[in-house]
Amino acid sequence: MPEIPPEQEARESELVERVVASFAGTPEPRTRELVESLTRHLHAFLRETRLTEAEWREAIGFLTAVGEITDERRQEFILLSDVLGASMQTITINNEAHANATEATVFGPFFVEGSPHVGLGGDISGGAPGEPCWVEGRVSDTSGAPVAGALVEVWEADSDGRYDVQYDDDRVAARGHLHTDADGRYRFWAVTPTPYPIPDDGPVGRLLRATGRSPMRAAHLHLMVVADGCRTLVTHVFPRGDAHLDADSVFGVRDSLVVDVEHDLPGTETPDGREVVGPWSRITFDVVLALEGRPSGETQQPELGLDQ
Amino acid sequence: MPEIPPEQEARESELVERVVASFAGTPEPRTRELVESLTRHLHAFLRETRLTEAEWREAIGFLTAVGEITDERRQEFILLSDVLGASMQTITINNEAHANATEATVFGPFFVEGSPHVGLGGDISGGAPGEPCWVEGRVSDTSGAPVAGALVEVWEADSDGRYDVQYDDDRVAARGHLHTDADGRYRFWAVTPTPYPIPDDGPVGRLLRATGRSPMRAAHLHLMVVADGCRTLVTHVFPRGDAHLDADSVFGVRDSLVVDVEHDLPGTETPDGREVVGPWSRITFDVVLALEGRPSGETQQPELGLDQ
Repeated sequence: MPEIPPEQEARESELVERVVASFAGTPEPRTRELVESLTRHLHAFLRETRLTEAEWREAIGFLTAVGEITDERRQEFILLSDVLGASMQTITINNEAHANATEATVFGPFFVEGSPHVGLGGDISGGAPGEPCWVEGRVSDTSGAPVAGALVEVWEADSDGRYDVQYDDDRVAARGHLHTDADGRYRFWAVTPTPYPIPDDGPVGRLLRATGRSPMRAAHLHLMVVADGCRTLVTHVFPRGDAHLDADSVFGVRDSLVVDVEHDLPGTETPDGREVVGPWSRITFDVVLALEGRPSGETQQPELGLDQ
Repeated sequence: MPEIPPEQEARESELVERVVASFAGTPEPRTRELVESLTRHLHAFLRETRLTEAEWREAIGFLTAVGEITDERRQEFILLSDVLGASMQTITINNEAHANATEATVFGPFFVEGSPHVGLGGDISGGAPGEPCWVEGRVSDTSGAPVAGALVEVWEADSDGRYDVQYDDDRVAARGHLHTDADGRYRFWAVTPTPYPIPDDGPVGRLLRATGRSPMRAAHLHLMVVADGCRTLVTHVFPRGDAHLDADSVFGVRDSLVVDVEHDLPGTETPDGREVVGPWSRITFDVVLALEGRPSGETQQPELGLDQ
């Protein structure tokens, strides 16, 4: 870092204060807080790195490319937030660990409203390629009481590493929803989760390559659990032993979400008596929901007004 | 700011370190420095503001909208950088004031390569609406020597507040270039600069409205001066007395760039004997170029590799 003359320091910090002061008339206090903090951190980054004009142009070009590739099926800004850990940090900030509640992780870009209802013991795979996997568990709240009738939404990539929305046709596969029974229990057939790369043929892929990083995500199954009186949980189940658990490209792994998978059960009787040819696997994952009313920024903040 | 429990602080800072560590394999040291600093400042912003998940979604939506409106004629990312003062801060960082050299300011999105050659005393207006304005000055270097043959590029908005690239047709107007004479002097006809709003019908305009800010730029004439052995100067000339000098929407104003404009000279003989009907104005602006070889990050840094 070269020495910065005091007059230069003064010019730069005077500019920061001028930009911050320009937001003094912001009507909504929360919006003002956000733009002021953004301004200070953005300028601190520029000053600390002594960003060159060529680098600034490259950054503008990079963001422009992120915008160009983004459409209704591809959200490169979310991907960028994911690989910088910003998505996971936002999740972490808004889902403080408390009691023994199951930890949250990233939502990801592949959830779709209106998934098929498969019912208890049903099959969410919808013909997606992959090894059959029996998933079962119990949903309770942090007081230990079972949560009956909880909505359990499940989605995952197939064994080729693709979600159905990445298929060339409109097939719905490897997603579905069901409700817990009176005892809080759920169970369904899925496919055994496998690792896959995030889309890396765009600017975020170039960023990963320029920084020597892998696009691979640790294998996982997405779960969202919704129940009256409880905080909605968005999380993953990660099979133990996956080689990418320590280098998940979106930083979504939490130790508490890594579970044992029973593998290689060809010929073994399945839990529901279904006949399966070849190997299948089994995952047990109990879910503990936080009771509603815990501090959560989510419901306390007004909109910023940027969409008006 | 709510109190953050220590375990929560630990979870959040552990995530920051995990993201920073993911960049440890970056081949190019400067790229690593930039992504690490970006990560730390981005996460500091998220943690300091306790950004909610709804606000994160709104931010993603905002950036997506910035990408959608950007095309070859409209660069909303540059506009965003401009209104956050990031463009001006980058200019400030890379153009340390030294000796008596003329100060730099923002380049803006409206420069076009291949402007018409108008020659000394020529007219750059190209038929753009506006009051005629005679601009003259002398280019010297910081040693005081006149700079002969310096390229002077000039561009500006017309009196309707539009640059030619914002016209509906392909007309070229209110831009041109010339070279200084043996004594370092330049002179040309232009139109008197008038204040105008930056394009505010997109997401950056919504940001300005949500924060109670004006889109107006203080009136200015763009100058770029290029000469062998000197650092290229990109700057503006601002007429004194403009109501927007203290609230320029892109923070481009520097006191040293504000000059007196002689107004209301109908009937007065023009400097070159040209017959002008009605009022015209006159600006004198001397330029001092820094000698090359001054510290400038611009030429020392390799590309980041994001465009590969």
